[in-house]
Amino acid sequence: MTDERTANDQSPWMPFENRRRARDEKREAVLRMAVQVFLEQGYHRATLNEVAERLNITKPALYNYFRSKDEILFECWALGQEQVDDLIAVINRSRQSGLGKLRALVHAYAETMATDFGASLVRFDPRDLKPHNAEKVRAAKRGIDLTFRRYIAEGIADGSIKPCDPKLAAFAIAGSLNWIGHWYQRGGSLTPDAIADEFAIRLTDGLARRSVKKASAEAAPAPRTRKPTKGENR
Amino acid sequence: MTDERTANDQSPWMPFENRRRARDEKREAVLRMAVQVFLEQGYHRATLNEVAERLNITKPALYNYFRSKDEILFECWALGQEQVDDLIAVINRSRQSGLGKLRALVHAYAETMATDFGASLVRFDPRDLKPHNAEKVRAAKRGIDLTFRRYIAEGIADGSIKPCDPKLAAFAIAGSLNWIGHWYQRGGSLTPDAIADEFAIRLTDGLARRSVKKASAEAAPAPRTRKPTKGENR
Repeated sequence: MTDERTANDQSPWMPFENRRRARDEKREAVLRMAVQVFLEQGYHRATLNEVAERLNITKPALYNYFRSKDEILFECWALGQEQVDDLIAVINRSRQSGLGKLRALVHAYAETMATDFGASLVRFDPRDLKPHNAEKVRAAKRGIDLTFRRYIAEGIADGSIKPCDPKLAAFAIAGSLNWIGHWYQRGGSLTPDAIADEFAIRLTDGLARRSVKKASAEAAPAPRTRKPTKGENR
Repeated sequence: MTDERTANDQSPWMPFENRRRARDEKREAVLRMAVQVFLEQGYHRATLNEVAERLNITKPALYNYFRSKDEILFECWALGQEQVDDLIAVINRSRQSGLGKLRALVHAYAETMATDFGASLVRFDPRDLKPHNAEKVRAAKRGIDLTFRRYIAEGIADGSIKPCDPKLAAFAIAGSLNWIGHWYQRGGSLTPDAIADEFAIRLTDGLARRSVKKASAEAAPAPRTRKPTKGENR
């Protein structure tokens, strides 16, 4: 920041761009703390007083950034959903078989579930939101479900996945993944990476026409589903 | 009831045994209605007024049977847990391989998740209960998790299941099953029976040393995991 201030170092005010950025950072800090408190205590038991206290600010100060508790909940959800939307967009653009896409989604979604914002996709109740926001959440959930089904259907069509009921198969996979948001504990013995590696194979191998363990190298999961190098990790 | 009343038909009061039974029936009717309202609206939004109204009684009349809303929630959970405890007891007594026990548990648990009391095992938050009841719920959840792990470990030991991490495998299976409690809709296109049949194979086939589809008849799932005849259905 120091080098950016050279032009304005005569002024006691921050340049507009810096102020905007500082505001965005503070807004996100509120969400990071709020999602933590909501997950720890449950949305209904959690208070904005506690969120404010942990941030060393007053509760009224929170209202500089958000209008209400349920708006904060919605924004936490939105940050998790953004992660999922981004990774689906990347997978959609990739040139892989249906099975490859499914594995990539399982891997990335498993990692997302092990983050606070990711867990907020499954740990909170849309009925606590304003109706128009609840509807956005429900539509997005349907979208994720349909993406799983679409990759499975693509896999059946391209021969990488054995014939099955895409709806039931998608439910079985999504259930295992969403459950991570409930049981995962940061700092526990299982890292998000190890969970994602294991689930990417375990949850899809029964669907695959050729098992990973028996298949030849070219049928192994596409690069995107492999364990990323440490630098790539979020 | 008429034939039971012959001895007492001179008395305007019901025999004690009948009164006790009527009270138990009313108590259970309250729980059946309450769990439905809690699942529909979420525990925090649901009111005992609504539960009473739907039963054509007053809210104070509910307090003849239960002391508080959270006691009702706990009793709903307890009825679901009782179902699970019973089916685990039956499976424990059966003489099957670890894989057989695991399949039997997946099948029965899937069916339970498609009932209202079963869904209450996963749709409500123990933190809404009194601390001593919340502790009972958490201990029971750990118990179910350990049962899944134990069957998997038994299967590895007896050779019916391929070597794997029982903890992660149990989480993957329990996640798919618990998710049923969230998505299952009574009267939808998928019957509990069909879901249970599908999941009993899908969630365990990757672990099996010999796949169901390839295995010979004697390695097929034990009778308890097969589709029950209609008469056996709850």
